[in-house]
Amino acid sequence: MALKNGEQYVESIRKMRPNIYKWGKIIEDVTTHPATCLHVQSVKRSYDLSHDQGKASIYTSKSHLTGDMIHRWNSLMQSAEDVMGNSNMKREQFHQSGTCQGATCAGWTAMNVIWDATWQIDKDLGTDYHERVKKYWKFMEDNCVTMAGAITDAKGNRSLRPSQQTNKDSNLHVKEIRSDGIVIRGFKCQICGVAAANEIICMPGSGYGETEKDFCVAAAVPRDVEGLTIVETRRPSDARDEEEGWDAPKAGNITQTFLIFDDVFVPKDRVFMCGEFKYTGRLLMNFTSIYRAAIGACVAGQGDVMIGAAINMARANGLGMRTFQDKLVQMAINNEITYGLGLGAILRGKKQPSGIFIPDPLLAHANKTQVAKLPYETKVITQDISGGIAETGCFPSFKDFQSPLYGTKLFDALTAGADGETRSRAARLVEWLTVGGGIPGCMHGGGSPDGARLVVRAMTKWEDYAAEARRIAGITAELQDPTPPKK
Amino acid sequence: MALKNGEQYVESIRKMRPNIYKWGKIIEDVTTHPATCLHVQSVKRSYDLSHDQGKASIYTSKSHLTGDMIHRWNSLMQSAEDVMGNSNMKREQFHQSGTCQGATCAGWTAMNVIWDATWQIDKDLGTDYHERVKKYWKFMEDNCVTMAGAITDAKGNRSLRPSQQTNKDSNLHVKEIRSDGIVIRGFKCQICGVAAANEIICMPGSGYGETEKDFCVAAAVPRDVEGLTIVETRRPSDARDEEEGWDAPKAGNITQTFLIFDDVFVPKDRVFMCGEFKYTGRLLMNFTSIYRAAIGACVAGQGDVMIGAAINMARANGLGMRTFQDKLVQMAINNEITYGLGLGAILRGKKQPSGIFIPDPLLAHANKTQVAKLPYETKVITQDISGGIAETGCFPSFKDFQSPLYGTKLFDALTAGADGETRSRAARLVEWLTVGGGIPGCMHGGGSPDGARLVVRAMTKWEDYAAEARRIAGITAELQDPTPPKK
Amino acid sequence: MALKNGEQYVESIRKMRPNIYKWGKIIEDVTTHPATCLHVQSVKRSYDLSHDQGKASIYTSKSHLTGDMIHRWNSLMQSAEDVMGNSNMKREQFHQSGTCQGATCAGWTAMNVIWDATWQIDKDLGTDYHERVKKYWKFMEDNCVTMAGAITDAKGNRSLRPSQQTNKDSNLHVKEIRSDGIVIRGFKCQICGVAAANEIICMPGSGYGETEKDFCVAAAVPRDVEGLTIVETRRPSDARDEEEGWDAPKAGNITQTFLIFDDVFVPKDRVFMCGEFKYTGRLLMNFTSIYRAAIGACVAGQGDVMIGAAINMARANGLGMRTFQDKLVQMAINNEITYGLGLGAILRGKKQPSGIFIPDPLLAHANKTQVAKLPYETKVITQDISGGIAETGCFPSFKDFQSPLYGTKLFDALTAGADGETRSRAARLVEWLTVGGGIPGCMHGGGSPDGARLVVRAMTKWEDYAAEARRIAGITAELQDPTPPKK
Amino acid sequence: MALKNGEQYVESIRKMRPNIYKWGKIIEDVTTHPATCLHVQSVKRSYDLSHDQGKASIYTSKSHLTGDMIHRWNSLMQSAEDVMGNSNMKREQFHQSGTCQGATCAGWTAMNVIWDATWQIDKDLGTDYHERVKKYWKFMEDNCVTMAGAITDAKGNRSLRPSQQTNKDSNLHVKEIRSDGIVIRGFKCQICGVAAANEIICMPGSGYGETEKDFCVAAAVPRDVEGLTIVETRRPSDARDEEEGWDAPKAGNITQTFLIFDDVFVPKDRVFMCGEFKYTGRLLMNFTSIYRAAIGACVAGQGDVMIGAAINMARANGLGMRTFQDKLVQMAINNEITYGLGLGAILRGKKQPSGIFIPDPLLAHANKTQVAKLPYETKVITQDISGGIAETGCFPSFKDFQSPLYGTKLFDALTAGADGETRSRAARLVEWLTVGGGIPGCMHGGGSPDGARLVVRAMTKWEDYAAEARRIAGITAELQDPTPPKK
Repeated sequence: MALKNGEQYVESIRKMRPNIYKWGKIIEDVTTHPATCLHVQSVKRSYDLSHDQGKASIYTSKSHLTGDMIHRWNSLMQSAEDVMGNSNMKREQFHQSGTCQGATCAGWTAMNVIWDATWQIDKDLGTDYHERVKKYWKFMEDNCVTMAGAITDAKGNRSLRPSQQTNKDSNLHVKEIRSDGIVIRGFKCQICGVAAANEIICMPGSGYGETEKDFCVAAAVPRDVEGLTIVETRRPSDARDEEEGWDAPKAGNITQTFLIFDDVFVPKDRVFMCGEFKYTGRLLMNFTSIYRAAIGACVAGQGDVMIGAAINMARANGLGMRTFQDKLVQMAINNEITYGLGLGAILRGKKQPSGIFIPDPLLAHANKTQVAKLPYETKVITQDISGGIAETGCFPSFKDFQSPLYGTKLFDALTAGADGETRSRAARLVEWLTVGGGIPGCMHGGGSPDGARLVVRAMTKWEDYAAEARRIAGITAELQDPTPPKK
Repeated sequence: MALKNGEQYVESIRKMRPNIYKWGKIIEDVTTHPATCLHVQSVKRSYDLSHDQGKASIYTSKSHLTGDMIHRWNSLMQSAEDVMGNSNMKREQFHQSGTCQGATCAGWTAMNVIWDATWQIDKDLGTDYHERVKKYWKFMEDNCVTMAGAITDAKGNRSLRPSQQTNKDSNLHVKEIRSDGIVIRGFKCQICGVAAANEIICMPGSGYGETEKDFCVAAAVPRDVEGLTIVETRRPSDARDEEEGWDAPKAGNITQTFLIFDDVFVPKDRVFMCGEFKYTGRLLMNFTSIYRAAIGACVAGQGDVMIGAAINMARANGLGMRTFQDKLVQMAINNEITYGLGLGAILRGKKQPSGIFIPDPLLAHANKTQVAKLPYETKVITQDISGGIAETGCFPSFKDFQSPLYGTKLFDALTAGADGETRSRAARLVEWLTVGGGIPGCMHGGGSPDGARLVVRAMTKWEDYAAEARRIAGITAELQDPTPPKK
Repeated sequence: MALKNGEQYVESIRKMRPNIYKWGKIIEDVTTHPATCLHVQSVKRSYDLSHDQGKASIYTSKSHLTGDMIHRWNSLMQSAEDVMGNSNMKREQFHQSGTCQGATCAGWTAMNVIWDATWQIDKDLGTDYHERVKKYWKFMEDNCVTMAGAITDAKGNRSLRPSQQTNKDSNLHVKEIRSDGIVIRGFKCQICGVAAANEIICMPGSGYGETEKDFCVAAAVPRDVEGLTIVETRRPSDARDEEEGWDAPKAGNITQTFLIFDDVFVPKDRVFMCGEFKYTGRLLMNFTSIYRAAIGACVAGQGDVMIGAAINMARANGLGMRTFQDKLVQMAINNEITYGLGLGAILRGKKQPSGIFIPDPLLAHANKTQVAKLPYETKVITQDISGGIAETGCFPSFKDFQSPLYGTKLFDALTAGADGETRSRAARLVEWLTVGGGIPGCMHGGGSPDGARLVVRAMTKWEDYAAEARRIAGITAELQDPTPPKK
Repeated sequence: MALKNGEQYVESIRKMRPNIYKWGKIIEDVTTHPATCLHVQSVKRSYDLSHDQGKASIYTSKSHLTGDMIHRWNSLMQSAEDVMGNSNMKREQFHQSGTCQGATCAGWTAMNVIWDATWQIDKDLGTDYHERVKKYWKFMEDNCVTMAGAITDAKGNRSLRPSQQTNKDSNLHVKEIRSDGIVIRGFKCQICGVAAANEIICMPGSGYGETEKDFCVAAAVPRDVEGLTIVETRRPSDARDEEEGWDAPKAGNITQTFLIFDDVFVPKDRVFMCGEFKYTGRLLMNFTSIYRAAIGACVAGQGDVMIGAAINMARANGLGMRTFQDKLVQMAINNEITYGLGLGAILRGKKQPSGIFIPDPLLAHANKTQVAKLPYETKVITQDISGGIAETGCFPSFKDFQSPLYGTKLFDALTAGADGETRSRAARLVEWLTVGGGIPGCMHGGGSPDGARLVVRAMTKWEDYAAEARRIAGITAELQDPTPPKK
């Protein structure tokens, strides 16, 4: 079965072992629990749209193993078109729910870069990791799985390396190597999309040297694997998302988790890297290059929804688009910058010997700096256009509107260019997008902008530019950075 | 009694008639109900600090009626120093709770500009409004009251004037004039500080012409006056504020309400304006000039707390201030701009014949445009420094930390440069300040930045500047805007 | 001959009829006159580098007519790679001289879009324009010509259309149609690269309707055609560029001109459009899509030189790169945004039935808005790093350094981290790049950012986004812009 | 004589010894030489306006010595009003000429802070410096002198202190102390307003410690003192300013110089500081506090002229203000921010025991960071509105318009909403303001923005804010910067 429908997907999630908690209690069924069901519904939609005539080209791709049509999030990205397909699917997914889907993103990207790294490791060291990856890939395609990507470790003290932490669990590590597999333990934090995922792809959270060998582990585990405890995190206004009524939009949502690996056994076939520290730098650079080329499409997709939400609010207030045309155009420009700069990274990208295609890291990381900037400007404009009611969601709760005592009055008070309920829903969407649960975490999601700046710094040809400027200026003297003088 | 202490103030609030609702239910005691108690506690602090040796000069001022020391929010602002005192108190109040106090702000400012308007109305029309104001002022001082300012109407369709709305209640209006007072009805919305206020000062939400006479009403009503129903609004993550635990800071908070005036009778002595439309423009311009000079201090005060919150997070992550020094300096600059530009408006201000001092409107409104811009940049930097954990508050709830099953593990996972609880508290504060209940609503609070731009437009000497530029350029020809040509 | 060398090119320019003026006098030889020689030298370099092993792939391409290697600026752009080649050549050319080369840019792009438009016109109307274009293309390749692009008309009153202007010459137009060709007259203004061009490609400056038929003319004329008078314009500090010494860099420069067409006869073979108004909109949109995708590379190339110039200044002042690392990284990011967003427009581009490849207009025009913004920020950072000496070039002239009286003292006074001459040269380059002749005119060059915003406005799917936001918000009511109400 | 008129002032300048050079030649009469005459004319205007009924309050003040009305630039600033008077005069002066006047600014401010420093030195050390200052003040008032302020040294290598420089002349220093005075030598660079000044006030360029004692010298010298050679520097497009015609505006200009002190003798009465290193820090902080509070008014004044210039260009192009209203409002806001934030610094300022009034340093330095930012944005908007013709001044020279061959055609080509000459003049003004001689050097003038950031850093209460944030967050643990760990 190369393509599932939404119902089949939900069923695959429903039947997993409950190991996810929120509010101190276990979630028996993530597909119906208010904390997670919107997330599952959101991913379900991607399965259904894989069968939609108009959208199938966005949500599906061709298997490099079988040539069959498969869900795009199960495919190997082999060309600029494939990586652009990643971007375009993400922008489209945000149009569906207004936020991220998680389970069709980081795990997929992780498997792509693991494909590449294992190809190289096997070539250099004669290991059989790449064969395991291929086998797992077949499983992944056949079962149409969703995969969360567990990259970020708990880290502990940011001034210390993993091996220097008081608690070794601060970073996921190999505790034991057995003949039939490995035992891993430690914390992965702020992991997106887990509740809607069938599988979790673990990989190192940073590039490491030899001292950090234990932390160089890549592996795939079922979400409900023994020994794994998952805690859902809070989101802005998350209690609201779990309420009835219209105080939060119900078209989909995203969740993030803390993963507690408490001596989880991973059988050999699902272990893709175990100590090969030399390849972690490349793994991470490839991951971030794909991820940061595409993340511009994510925030553009949400930005498109913000444009729509702002237009709706303007109209619900009794005004027209025209009043805010300059601001709306600025929002559109912001969206196209992060989307288009990501595409530029792709056009400058290169096919790798392993078969995957990697966008240009310099442009991808330059894009991340804008992803950490422009969506905030777009949010501010959304609030600016929408008016005080939407800025902080400053109006009564759904429950108050039901009051026999004053509910009708509230509807009256909210009526403007549209009826009170319509205007309230429009305002709640703005709130959710700008200060609520819909915020995608674009600052640190996929790594921090400061990290991206370090890459820009490392990849810019400073001395070449200085030399060109000297030639143009007619300077013949040497000019170098001074040796720090004694003061 | 010219100065109350905090306990006396709380008592004065506690004994009022319950007429405030949230979640569809009445709040029996606002001083203890979780939705409002933090707000009352926050204002209580201002009463207590009025007696604090180090802070008294900030929180108190001298009565222009009696010469006694009074709470600053009961005083007439008669000089640049007095208006700077307003700014300085606000910056300090934000330092106390991280957010706005509401009940010591807009109502006070409203009474100041009503003082001025009624002085002029009486002078022009021979009415006795100003005498009523004086009498009310004495009551206000004697009782050390807090006052919410009810300016913003529900408005209805933004393309129509009050008198054109389908529902006249969209704007507060005079329904009946009796010999002993007036009856008012309609909606005032997004009114700040009501739950912590003894009194509500109503004034028109805009400058009006003759057709809108009915809407030109200024009056003082007790918060628990008969006929008034008050509905508390939602805030970002407001449910969280009402929970136990550390998922929201507990040092204070602000609330906002919808006021439903359902034929409220106001006795003559408390009616300060009733139909005198000609004076509404001046009233509003004076109000916004004071308000927008001072609001820069509010957001600076919160910005100071954001600086502190960011430093704490950096340290809790195991890093030092030094790593983020440039960003911290930028935050400080943003704060000083809105604070200092407001002071500049004050220095250019003018004492009015009525005795009050009004900051320069051009500079005050220019400041509002920055208040709607720079705090957002400061928030983004706060999140940038703090890391992913604080960006969207992406970590487990207080309740999960109490889990016997995995609570300890969560503390471990959160431990970095500080213990897990400290780091969680630090992160929650950042979340609350940037995407939570602490957001002061600086975009539309006190009016929108687009409205401020209109004032800048009206007060800039475009033609003078064009003439000067022509002289400098040596242009002798006339240069005027073209009459729109036929196309 | 499919490739010329630099000397051959210069010779081709030298032997043309003198018809260029500056300072009220004719320029007898543009290859040696101080006002134009640096421009010619700059273009000469592109010819020479076409033969350079390391750079040939940048400066040459394959002829679609003959398959021979030709100068890139004589080629048809048929693929994303070809259009990226345009971008990459431009960034490289800016590295050579620090500024624009003009004669290898707009004329080339104009011929590409004329290729497309004539293909369509002939297809629709049975004309033979496309055959003429092919023939001219062969001439162009065979003679390795440089081509200026004459698009911008003098325009006259911006509120009126060409046919409404008092002086018809405000826009280039067809004065007479003869059996063997046409007579054209009028003004083309601010035309870049003319002094270094063999040919001038004229095309309409805007998309027109039927009333403006006379202004719909596309044609190629030799730069020295009879009836054409060319006046070189001023540039910032242009007198300085013509001086001896180091007060301006001498690695190349750009010039711009006013073209006065005084009844210029164009033989039939060189007329490519004559009245076919319907095709002017498409012609312009295609032109701007290519041009605005590539212009981001131009300003990135200059930005690279600014990075180098800033590093040199820092060192000449006695400081190192490290002191300014954050600012330098910001400069690099600015450069990569405009470059990469242009590439993104290319990746989203489409091959046309005529054979040419056109970048995505929405992304290309979004890019133009950034080209009109980010380079200014980069300039400001350059000045910030460089110090007061470079900010406005605030130090003595080359001539003063030669003074027997105080010249040596000036060298002493300028000495810092480098000798006085080196530091002066470094500072003059910064001045030239930021407030001098090196400024490329990125605001209005290739059209204004406001025009680009209009395209973004026209191509953004506002109503789709509004509908998606309504679905997400759960809104079922219609929401439309209000019909303007009576007030 | 407490007030001179313009003619008397010019005469006082004309009769000085020629010691100013440009282009390698001596300037015999700065009041008529094309390099300097516009500067003198500009200052002359301030003398004349001191007698203008409408403007006298701006240009004059009351002597604290005699009570007579004196030119403002000869007064002691004793109150917030006095320092605001400084700001207001500067904004007004920029309205007169579009640029800085130099000779009524830094020297005056220097004398004010020398007044304060000497008061303290005498108090502490029993010296008689302050008496000398008083005596000199009387001379200054009586002679109505203009004073340049020579603060910036040549500095040499920025990584080394003055005493560590290879060439001691890199910084002005005391070479010899005699019984009747001192001998000073060294370079002061980029000194503004010298050509229009009667006197030069020297003071140290930085705060120094004991090792730098020789460089701690404050003194007044006549501009034409023996031993002083002055070299005028270049400005952007400065050759143009010296031409005939309309290619540069003629309403005034500013010049800057290099001062070569070659063993200049200063008699005792004119020596105000000689080795008292401890007071240099305070001297500099006071200087920059006044200077950076006021410099926001300078750039606001030029910004006003840019508003006017942009309006004129829009009209000359055939368009109206309305088309660009949002951009014009943004320009106005930028102007009011730097002006108003400077005023805010003044309102927070403090009267010193010595009698002078010093603005708040934190706000003054915060303002400097905006002065180094917002005027650039204003310039960009000016160019945006003005169109390509003004962006780089891309149209023919005045001389070309005189050509009998094609001059008339050029006028025709330039005609739009106004005649060709008017439009040309309007465009040249924009060019001059944005990339020409009118640029005031707001980045490093009065010190660099990075220096200002250091002051903001030093004066912000980081630890207080962190403590407040901890209290609000409910954190009881200590949180400190980590001791750098071993890695």
